[in-house]
Amino acid sequence: MGRWEPNARERLQRSALALFAERGYDSTTAAGIAEGAGLGKSTFFRHFADKREVLFDGQEQLNEALVAAIAAAPAEAGPYEVIGLALDAMGAFFGPERLEWARQRQAVVQAHSELRERELLKIASLTEAFAGSLRARGLGATAAGVAAELGGLAFRAAFAGWIAPDNALGFPEVARRELAAVREAAASLD
Amino acid sequence: MGRWEPNARERLQRSALALFAERGYDSTTAAGIAEGAGLGKSTFFRHFADKREVLFDGQEQLNEALVAAIAAAPAEAGPYEVIGLALDAMGAFFGPERLEWARQRQAVVQAHSELRERELLKIASLTEAFAGSLRARGLGATAAGVAAELGGLAFRAAFAGWIAPDNALGFPEVARRELAAVREAAASLD
Repeated sequence: MGRWEPNARERLQRSALALFAERGYDSTTAAGIAEGAGLGKSTFFRHFADKREVLFDGQEQLNEALVAAIAAAPAEAGPYEVIGLALDAMGAFFGPERLEWARQRQAVVQAHSELRERELLKIASLTEAFAGSLRARGLGATAAGVAAELGGLAFRAAFAGWIAPDNALGFPEVARRELAAVREAAASLD
Repeated sequence: MGRWEPNARERLQRSALALFAERGYDSTTAAGIAEGAGLGKSTFFRHFADKREVLFDGQEQLNEALVAAIAAAPAEAGPYEVIGLALDAMGAFFGPERLEWARQRQAVVQAHSELRERELLKIASLTEAFAGSLRARGLGATAAGVAAELGGLAFRAAFAGWIAPDNALGFPEVARRELAAVREAAASLD
């Protein structure tokens, strides 16, 4: 184990994004990312498995926060209320200090099919966490599946709305607005 | 261009599945697939870009059938009715003669993370086709997004139900049953 490097993880993330944006994802190496952060290559690999993982850091913690929020929701809360509480909890990962990072990250991911594919896997894992937690509360499998898809949709819309250039609201506010729109749209289909 | 090989495409698909199941996906090569089908390697590459594509053949045609069915739906049809017509049209790709292939294919895809990831991309492209076609009918963006997610969910449930070992129904019947369940579940959330 090497010596402790203050904020190494965050420095590596910032360096990676700057290089991905400047040179392109394919032309950037783990060693280059480490160098850009003023760190050694071995420090990079203590924090991330490869350069792709720099962009998908925090996935498990996000899913865990969602699962914990759903487990802690009041027994009498309906599915949409539970989804709203889960989105609130996820807001802890999307504070104002992460906004610029999130915007740059999204631009890199959208520009690369391999990264878009990985992003879909991330969303699928989030939706599965939603569905599993709702089933654990006693919701039927189909209802949990539907609620999870709608929760995932609200999350994606909230994320897109939060990083939009003209947005001034915090993630939880955008998420509540998007969830209300999804709920209204779902009711309007029938 | 080589000489015409009767049913080469189908023979290659059957050979690929047999080898994926027997030797595993990673240990199977395009040349081995061609050999198993009694064909040359160049014939394989006239039909498929690589061994992965053998499993994802027909994706574009499936999306086109969905888009055409939605465009042809009566103007007065509601979103769920339109989704039902799209699922009916997709049934043309899932006839009884494809059932055994679909079962074997699913087992191979589920066993391999790279293939599961590619499958998610396929589902995302299907959902996008749903949403785009519904927007083209004048449905609002959020409602089209919600309907597309629910249509995609019904499709996945229909596919899983159709290939289930104890299922004796055709794809369109399973799809109608699953769509009704999704519709009922969506209404029950509120």
